[in-house]
Amino acid sequence: MDQALNNQWQNAFYRLRSNKAFELFVIGIIVFSALVIGVKTYQLPDYVYRIVTVLDWAITFIFLTEITIRYLGEPDKKRFFRNPWNVFDTLIVVVSLIPIDNTDMALIGRLVRIFRVLRMVSIIPELRMLLNSLVRALPQLGYVLLMMFIIFYIYAAIGSTFFAAINPGLWGDIALSLLTLFRVMTFEDWTDVMYETMTVYPLSWFYYLTFIFFTAFAFLNMIIGIVVNVLDEEHRRVARQEAEDAGEPDLRDLQREIRELKELILQQQKAG
Amino acid sequence: MDQALNNQWQNAFYRLRSNKAFELFVIGIIVFSALVIGVKTYQLPDYVYRIVTVLDWAITFIFLTEITIRYLGEPDKKRFFRNPWNVFDTLIVVVSLIPIDNTDMALIGRLVRIFRVLRMVSIIPELRMLLNSLVRALPQLGYVLLMMFIIFYIYAAIGSTFFAAINPGLWGDIALSLLTLFRVMTFEDWTDVMYETMTVYPLSWFYYLTFIFFTAFAFLNMIIGIVVNVLDEEHRRVARQEAEDAGEPDLRDLQREIRELKELILQQQKAG
Amino acid sequence: MDQALNNQWQNAFYRLRSNKAFELFVIGIIVFSALVIGVKTYQLPDYVYRIVTVLDWAITFIFLTEITIRYLGEPDKKRFFRNPWNVFDTLIVVVSLIPIDNTDMALIGRLVRIFRVLRMVSIIPELRMLLNSLVRALPQLGYVLLMMFIIFYIYAAIGSTFFAAINPGLWGDIALSLLTLFRVMTFEDWTDVMYETMTVYPLSWFYYLTFIFFTAFAFLNMIIGIVVNVLDEEHRRVARQEAEDAGEPDLRDLQREIRELKELILQQQKAG
Amino acid sequence: MDQALNNQWQNAFYRLRSNKAFELFVIGIIVFSALVIGVKTYQLPDYVYRIVTVLDWAITFIFLTEITIRYLGEPDKKRFFRNPWNVFDTLIVVVSLIPIDNTDMALIGRLVRIFRVLRMVSIIPELRMLLNSLVRALPQLGYVLLMMFIIFYIYAAIGSTFFAAINPGLWGDIALSLLTLFRVMTFEDWTDVMYETMTVYPLSWFYYLTFIFFTAFAFLNMIIGIVVNVLDEEHRRVARQEAEDAGEPDLRDLQREIRELKELILQQQKAG
Repeated sequence: MDQALNNQWQNAFYRLRSNKAFELFVIGIIVFSALVIGVKTYQLPDYVYRIVTVLDWAITFIFLTEITIRYLGEPDKKRFFRNPWNVFDTLIVVVSLIPIDNTDMALIGRLVRIFRVLRMVSIIPELRMLLNSLVRALPQLGYVLLMMFIIFYIYAAIGSTFFAAINPGLWGDIALSLLTLFRVMTFEDWTDVMYETMTVYPLSWFYYLTFIFFTAFAFLNMIIGIVVNVLDEEHRRVARQEAEDAGEPDLRDLQREIRELKELILQQQKAG
Repeated sequence: MDQALNNQWQNAFYRLRSNKAFELFVIGIIVFSALVIGVKTYQLPDYVYRIVTVLDWAITFIFLTEITIRYLGEPDKKRFFRNPWNVFDTLIVVVSLIPIDNTDMALIGRLVRIFRVLRMVSIIPELRMLLNSLVRALPQLGYVLLMMFIIFYIYAAIGSTFFAAINPGLWGDIALSLLTLFRVMTFEDWTDVMYETMTVYPLSWFYYLTFIFFTAFAFLNMIIGIVVNVLDEEHRRVARQEAEDAGEPDLRDLQREIRELKELILQQQKAG
Repeated sequence: MDQALNNQWQNAFYRLRSNKAFELFVIGIIVFSALVIGVKTYQLPDYVYRIVTVLDWAITFIFLTEITIRYLGEPDKKRFFRNPWNVFDTLIVVVSLIPIDNTDMALIGRLVRIFRVLRMVSIIPELRMLLNSLVRALPQLGYVLLMMFIIFYIYAAIGSTFFAAINPGLWGDIALSLLTLFRVMTFEDWTDVMYETMTVYPLSWFYYLTFIFFTAFAFLNMIIGIVVNVLDEEHRRVARQEAEDAGEPDLRDLQREIRELKELILQQQKAG
Repeated sequence: MDQALNNQWQNAFYRLRSNKAFELFVIGIIVFSALVIGVKTYQLPDYVYRIVTVLDWAITFIFLTEITIRYLGEPDKKRFFRNPWNVFDTLIVVVSLIPIDNTDMALIGRLVRIFRVLRMVSIIPELRMLLNSLVRALPQLGYVLLMMFIIFYIYAAIGSTFFAAINPGLWGDIALSLLTLFRVMTFEDWTDVMYETMTVYPLSWFYYLTFIFFTAFAFLNMIIGIVVNVLDEEHRRVARQEAEDAGEPDLRDLQREIRELKELILQQQKAG
């Protein structure tokens, strides 16, 4: 194939994928595929179900075409798969293409079709930025989350040790205890759990109250940490922007100018 | 009709509707109409019910008179109906005037009478501003709300796919699943929902915990977004006001003055 | 009585009531009276109950003595009763003194003894300041609270109109509906309330979801309002203090000095 | 023993305990001991249980060795036990060493083994700092917590007085009432508690609503207090750092320079 022709095609695809109308069309198809997923959760008459299945395949092929256009339009082919969103999009489409028969695989096929809705995040830049900011906020919380997990683990170990005989369904092993403690943290029927253990250990309210206190405190600390971080960044951004936008002199500029003045007067004196 | 006389009347109405006493009287009538609505929810003896009905019509006619005064007192008749609050007030009064007999319409009549209480918002400027600020805050949250809806939709689709057979009342279709997930987000008996699905899928706790984590995180992000926005606006408002109120010179003014000084000294040197 | 002697006594009382040890003693007695109240809620053997009753009277007489000392030590007798905390303290003690026999009054007597614990707030200045700051924050929230009440009232009126027949215990009249809606706002078994009305009106989930959305939004607005207010005041206080403490010149001072300089140079030129 | 040799050994231990690899090894052992604790909460076959018991003793002896190395490596032996974390670590290890037979003591032995997980906090500096910051935040909250306790105590005393006969399990004495009120504060089935007392005292909703209002308000106040404190400290830290880093002159420096200029010109005039 001619190289020049090849480039021409690539440019055509590049223009297409950068086109606003193309993007809106893809978003429309994603919304439509979400609706199809929603419709399939209802009890449908047979003929509607067949229509939906056809639509489903149509969506898959539109997505396949779209990804192909994106790939062909990419000037640097290697960079295409370095973008995790492109990998995600490709995977979703490729797995949708595999014909599946037996029930176990059918479930995975349905799951993959559901995850198509996530393509919304990959295609709208604002949502991608939002997700990135969420992911970037996580490591800052690392130590608070570790602290919280230590609190949970210690309380879960104590809970399994003392309460396993009272209600094995809630405190039978450390995994169940961790789930029960998460439930207590959300205040979901936590008094039922407490009253049950208080019949055997009347002082076990102390266990629950200290746990609620510690986790609430750690949680509060986490939220405040995020707020302070966000406000701090915001503050710096505003300060930087103000300084740039206004072109206002800072105190050092003024000091310099006063010193120049002083120099001038001193020269005058010497000359006089 | 004489134009001059017409103007004279309009001015009289304008003065009346701008009158503080008139406004307080209308607020009083709205409060009274709210009380009448409240009284009607109780089991009433027949004669009280008749009194209340009469009072109800009296209120409707007072409101009609008030709106008419407002309209006649408006210098620019076209602008009157451009204000959505005026349209709302007029609609409420006009619908209240329609005599209704059959039960279906009677319910609408009662609803319209209840919405009269909202006239409080249309007549007290501070409440109107509060509502405006709430409405204005919404678009800023647009992308976070969209992100949250995507999370809800994906989890609801997964829920319907896997749990529909376990409890059709909670997971039967995607609409029911969305409602169930909202319930889980408010922590309302969410463990009952979880324990039920865990009997079939023992690992389904992962579904609920990740859902709670994602929605809590998005919700937190939303709140922090609002707080930062509000503080930011507040900060700018304060800064602007300080600068205006104090008449304090900024650094640029000082720089200009120092440069004038320099100019003076240089002139002196040349002259000397 | 001799005026000089009178003044001498007053000074003695004034010194006594300003004494740190006296204050600590009174705080100790209040804590002790709180413990006595706590002990009385347990099933007590007869002789302990008699001891407690004696202690109760002893506390009352110590409080009476204390208030008397405070009053006699007050230089300006009229000002004493202008302080609402003094009026509160006096009332609590005087009502405790009334001997009560019949059961209805006995309950009031017990209540008054419980409210003695509130004397802690009247005697510790930091707690008094805290309460004042809480009370002062309320009017700022006035309009948000009014808005919230309007939302509650409209939803309660709608609830009574439509759901009264379904569950009169929850929606029978507007007062019950307000209580039920408060329950829904705290997410306490709100789905039970919703599922019940959804059997008759399948779309009533819209009623609950919009209600939760509106109240959550108004509540959020209220909290943000308080935070902004508090941060604002804090900011001003810090700025004022910094300016005062540091004795640092502001930009206007600098401008004045530069102008004086200019004046000097101009005089020089004229002279030259 | 030779003093020089002694010092040589101490230095060797000091280098060892400051070693990064040593620290990572200890963290690994703590994580492993946490896993052993978790495994023990499951029903284990006999031979696994015996393996776990052996591992448990191995961990204890590794910890003993580690503490010994730390102690021997400490240049100032007295300072070692002034650090509360060292005391904590030593206690945990020493108690683990006591051989225990009867069931009561066995429970304490298991508890001590669980608390080994807390050694994670003592060994990772970031977690230690986090805990310190939590502990340091507490006294600032002192008065708000005291205020909250007074509210709780008064409401609990009132609750025991009026509702003890209705449900002794919830309101029997002041301790039970405090627990019930904490439950009401977490909104856990609080309406069940309320509806029960409303059958006897129909106006008791007022008791619950005011309680929820007061505690929510005090809680809000506490959170805002923490946020303001944290932001304040952050603000000061940022301001201090900016001033230090930038070496930017402040307004006082400028004022001084302008005055020097003035002095110069005045001298010039005198000389002229």
